Amino acid sequence: MIPSRHFSSDNNAGALPEVLRAITEANSGHVPSYGGDPYTAAAEAALKKEFGAGTTAFLVSNGTAANVLGLQAVTRPYQAVICAAGAHIDVDECGAPERFSGCKLLPVPTADGKLRPDDLPPLLLSRGDEHRAQPRVLSITQATELGTVYRPGELRALAAAAHANDLLVHVDGARLCNAAASLGLSFREITSDVGVDLVSFGGTKAGLLGAEAVVFLNGLEIPEFKYLRKQGTHLASKMRFLAVQFEVLLKDQLWRRSASHANAMARRLAEKLRGLERVRITQPVEANAVFAVIPPETVGPLQARRRFQLWNPATSEVRWMTAWDTTEEDVDAFAADIREIVG
Amino acid sequence: MIPSRHFSSDNNAGALPEVLRAITEANSGHVPSYGGDPYTAAAEAALKKEFGAGTTAFLVSNGTAANVLGLQAVTRPYQAVICAAGAHIDVDECGAPERFSGCKLLPVPTADGKLRPDDLPPLLLSRGDEHRAQPRVLSITQATELGTVYRPGELRALAAAAHANDLLVHVDGARLCNAAASLGLSFREITSDVGVDLVSFGGTKAGLLGAEAVVFLNGLEIPEFKYLRKQGTHLASKMRFLAVQFEVLLKDQLWRRSASHANAMARRLAEKLRGLERVRITQPVEANAVFAVIPPETVGPLQARRRFQLWNPATSEVRWMTAWDTTEEDVDAFAADIREIVG
Amino acid sequence: MIPSRHFSSDNNAGALPEVLRAITEANSGHVPSYGGDPYTAAAEAALKKEFGAGTTAFLVSNGTAANVLGLQAVTRPYQAVICAAGAHIDVDECGAPERFSGCKLLPVPTADGKLRPDDLPPLLLSRGDEHRAQPRVLSITQATELGTVYRPGELRALAAAAHANDLLVHVDGARLCNAAASLGLSFREITSDVGVDLVSFGGTKAGLLGAEAVVFLNGLEIPEFKYLRKQGTHLASKMRFLAVQFEVLLKDQLWRRSASHANAMARRLAEKLRGLERVRITQPVEANAVFAVIPPETVGPLQARRRFQLWNPATSEVRWMTAWDTTEEDVDAFAADIREIVG
Amino acid sequence: MIPSRHFSSDNNAGALPEVLRAITEANSGHVPSYGGDPYTAAAEAALKKEFGAGTTAFLVSNGTAANVLGLQAVTRPYQAVICAAGAHIDVDECGAPERFSGCKLLPVPTADGKLRPDDLPPLLLSRGDEHRAQPRVLSITQATELGTVYRPGELRALAAAAHANDLLVHVDGARLCNAAASLGLSFREITSDVGVDLVSFGGTKAGLLGAEAVVFLNGLEIPEFKYLRKQGTHLASKMRFLAVQFEVLLKDQLWRRSASHANAMARRLAEKLRGLERVRITQPVEANAVFAVIPPETVGPLQARRRFQLWNPATSEVRWMTAWDTTEEDVDAFAADIREIVG
Repeated sequence: MIPSRHFSSDNNAGALPEVLRAITEANSGHVPSYGGDPYTAAAEAALKKEFGAGTTAFLVSNGTAANVLGLQAVTRPYQAVICAAGAHIDVDECGAPERFSGCKLLPVPTADGKLRPDDLPPLLLSRGDEHRAQPRVLSITQATELGTVYRPGELRALAAAAHANDLLVHVDGARLCNAAASLGLSFREITSDVGVDLVSFGGTKAGLLGAEAVVFLNGLEIPEFKYLRKQGTHLASKMRFLAVQFEVLLKDQLWRRSASHANAMARRLAEKLRGLERVRITQPVEANAVFAVIPPETVGPLQARRRFQLWNPATSEVRWMTAWDTTEEDVDAFAADIREIVG
Repeated sequence: MIPSRHFSSDNNAGALPEVLRAITEANSGHVPSYGGDPYTAAAEAALKKEFGAGTTAFLVSNGTAANVLGLQAVTRPYQAVICAAGAHIDVDECGAPERFSGCKLLPVPTADGKLRPDDLPPLLLSRGDEHRAQPRVLSITQATELGTVYRPGELRALAAAAHANDLLVHVDGARLCNAAASLGLSFREITSDVGVDLVSFGGTKAGLLGAEAVVFLNGLEIPEFKYLRKQGTHLASKMRFLAVQFEVLLKDQLWRRSASHANAMARRLAEKLRGLERVRITQPVEANAVFAVIPPETVGPLQARRRFQLWNPATSEVRWMTAWDTTEEDVDAFAADIREIVG
Repeated sequence: MIPSRHFSSDNNAGALPEVLRAITEANSGHVPSYGGDPYTAAAEAALKKEFGAGTTAFLVSNGTAANVLGLQAVTRPYQAVICAAGAHIDVDECGAPERFSGCKLLPVPTADGKLRPDDLPPLLLSRGDEHRAQPRVLSITQATELGTVYRPGELRALAAAAHANDLLVHVDGARLCNAAASLGLSFREITSDVGVDLVSFGGTKAGLLGAEAVVFLNGLEIPEFKYLRKQGTHLASKMRFLAVQFEVLLKDQLWRRSASHANAMARRLAEKLRGLERVRITQPVEANAVFAVIPPETVGPLQARRRFQLWNPATSEVRWMTAWDTTEEDVDAFAADIREIVG
Repeated sequence: MIPSRHFSSDNNAGALPEVLRAITEANSGHVPSYGGDPYTAAAEAALKKEFGAGTTAFLVSNGTAANVLGLQAVTRPYQAVICAAGAHIDVDECGAPERFSGCKLLPVPTADGKLRPDDLPPLLLSRGDEHRAQPRVLSITQATELGTVYRPGELRALAAAAHANDLLVHVDGARLCNAAASLGLSFREITSDVGVDLVSFGGTKAGLLGAEAVVFLNGLEIPEFKYLRKQGTHLASKMRFLAVQFEVLLKDQLWRRSASHANAMARRLAEKLRGLERVRITQPVEANAVFAVIPPETVGPLQARRRFQLWNPATSEVRWMTAWDTTEEDVDAFAADIREIVG
């Protein structure tokens, strides 16, 4: 029997049942299109409440759009965006950030997906030199692509270093829910309060059908963003259906319960594997992913049990990712599979 | 009491109940993301069946995206796209086609939203002149922005003229369902069979939550389109939820029943207004819109009853648009409102 | 014997002898590249002197570059540029303005190449509507593509109307020398003093090898322009050779002598044709071009004598253009040709 | 007394006297603009002769333009360009390649500026994955940014590896003259004959005022390139003045004499410094540059004698570059300066 849940990615999961219910409830009568409806106003207000008074939020349908539109909004084409090598904007968006913002990306190798203040100075030597793209944004990912989570102090230090060098701080928060849940903090405490300027706030991986938000913080106003979103092909006509997804996700901290569960499932998996000599966990398990090196010959047989990603074929590092709907039984069965196949 | 349905736009309506049911049914377990799931395969197959054997279809989340990505796929930036003045790509996409394809638009004034073969020659005088953007696509809208519908013969003649001049034919089919329903024809009979090369096939206005398709016809293959869609920020991660919407729309001709109903409601409204001297209907009512000139002073009071669009403030022309969920009661009540206020 | 000068375009002429001498004199030793040399400083100072204290000038190699870079500098991609239909940016730059600025062009039909304040209101109805590209620049051509010249009062009225509507005024001044010479005014009097914000200042048609300037006026500062020029592929390494061309053109009003001569040659031609019934001059001859309708069958035979442009094949309108090097003998001989062939 | 020649860059030098003479000779009468003149035809024919029968060449005014237009011509925006880290396209064009081609650059660290076949495989793992920009061009620099020169065998091996992986080979030949002169080979022998597909052929650093060519080889036809150049703002109106520069550079191998001299001056400098313990030459001196590490405290005092570039402040590596006009006296005097100051 094929199991119904895997460890490939949190975007392989469906939507939270609460989300479908909310959509069904909103599916009544006519409302103005393109965001002129009460659902959108409510979702924007909810986002403002979560991220703080100086917040402006815009809904879009996916994370690449949120990243590209957010970055485009705060840059001009001759500028550059500093990011971790391997960041989604660097390797998983088919060059969209460069294509649409015109900016150059300046990826920095990291051990754990996290950038540090010391990474900045070498990239700022070209300040003022017209032959070089001019760094304007520091983009970090929270939780990182490697399942690690920036602490508030780390974020604060990065933001201070960025601002001291005329850089804005962008957070690719495709898994911001997992990070906040992991830290036991609010969204505000890990964004606005520590100096972040804009966020791609991810709803899809947290359990929505497909909805993300570009969130400008701390009074950063981009009056032209409404045009950029429309021209950027992301102004949904039936916006209410994006909006109610966010409303329900933020209501009564549904996001926190869901993300905490996903995180717990990743930790459970890691714990179950403790002591297995041939499974070397390579990153701290702080969000909803377990990265591990396993013997190359075991990858295929294990994937035959449950799907997951071979992260790095060269080192035989794999990624096992949990979602809001991963069950303890899924984890335990997969841990048993690993124990059996990897040994 | 505020009525729950208006005559503003078909995108003010919600989704067909069948669509929500289908989404709920598809919301089970994990499936591969980014279109690697069985629902997407099924939707693509259904589209192929509708549009003919030489069809390749790609799902995206909105119509502007479909237009921009489709046009970009078949052009290079030095080329140009001929369209009717007032076409959605010309006036309702905030310059997105120019921005993303790099192409120049060449809008042609029309009386009824329809282009004709005679419109082409003057625009082709620059053929081969490197100082001029080179026409490559003829883009038409079906049903048009003015609620009129191209007949198969008209399409065949346009396509022949286009192909004879090295132009591809693109159909902005945001309301292709209304057109096909109006003509009592299949999608294939008004696209592939008459020489259309690519279609932006609209699902949203036909009753989906938000889903459209870029459809390449008659064997036109764009192997690189998968990259263009991803780079174009429109590869949905939970693609299954776009896909099932199309599946259900196409199944048992749900689209035809819905669109025929919307069309019938527009005709019913037009008929109810017959004989009203102060209501001059300006376009044939062939799809789901009624265009009319009414006295300027009646526009505001009438809009206070039900929302609709003042199409042209200079001439006091209004647009009354019906949707899949417009009822006979809505129409009759609104016709009574018009009779009362406009006289 | 083939005559050595024609009436095709002022860009068919070579360079003023003074220009070649200046280049030869500047061709000595090493100087910093990319504009860090004393010649560039001198040229920029000379331009500042001509256009007024609030001027910043940047050299580029051609007029399309000047237009594209200047427009890009003052716009964002969701905006629009209003221009006369038939403007160089509209029909002679292969879509470059759209491609590089991302902006939409909004061309307005004119009788004489000139825009008027009344042309603006209909284009500003979309202000604030995110579905429409937002007008940001009014671009006019001086002298116009039709050889007419805006008077200072016309410019002042246009600029006032533009500024009242949050539009900047750009002058495509490929033939600004001809306009200033025609009016007997300084550059400043027809740009900075009447409210123009930026100019593409043309040197090439005035007798340079190939050099133009993007000139920002009245304190309009674009600190990022140096990056835009470099990224825009127009930062010349041996900038001194662009710079000395401008220096010599501006020195002792060489430009005025040259342009006045070209203008006089056009007037001379028009006067010589007075009374010819079959030559209908269609535009006031205010700069260095004569536009005329002649019988279609005479176009070819006449072109066999001296090259010129058939401006509008549909109406058999031709353009006869003079240059800095056109002689009275050239004009008289060509007038005789016309008299002989057209009758 | 300030010396008139420095060691900053070959683009600090002026133009070869032969070039100015040729321009002066071409400055007579009217010729068709935009390349329709006999000079352009002659220059294109000369380039074809140099690079082989399957050559098509287009003139532009600078090297960044040649790179950007050439790369844009052979790519689509979702593709990627592999280059050496530190390549001009990577670090000296302010992001222009990304901005205009839409492509992502994939820079590869190198020790000597040269790429090798082994660099390719890791970058090709993403082949076919729509989330990743797809490598399409291998761009190398000849002579490299570090003054080294690819041997024909190295080029052949690279081109074979590239072609085997569906990559085209682009040569940034800003200093192709220096490379060919260094190797004692023809242009063809280090481009067409070894499998190169397109070249940015540099004239400016070789002694022109400012002229480069985009050269397509071995029958690679880009019929649309004329539009791309025009839209790319690089179609010069008085093209004859670009063309005669190339004609004279290629005539009787003027380029070889000039570049050989520049190369010889670099070698002479390196030889004069032999034995200086505190001057560590870091790269083979194969073209017209000497790279050396000198004590940090000597950089400033030495720059006060003759200008040159501090290549890497972190390591105190400097670049001394010679040009066509560098004299033996310049070299000897500078070597003496180095001996005196660095010791």
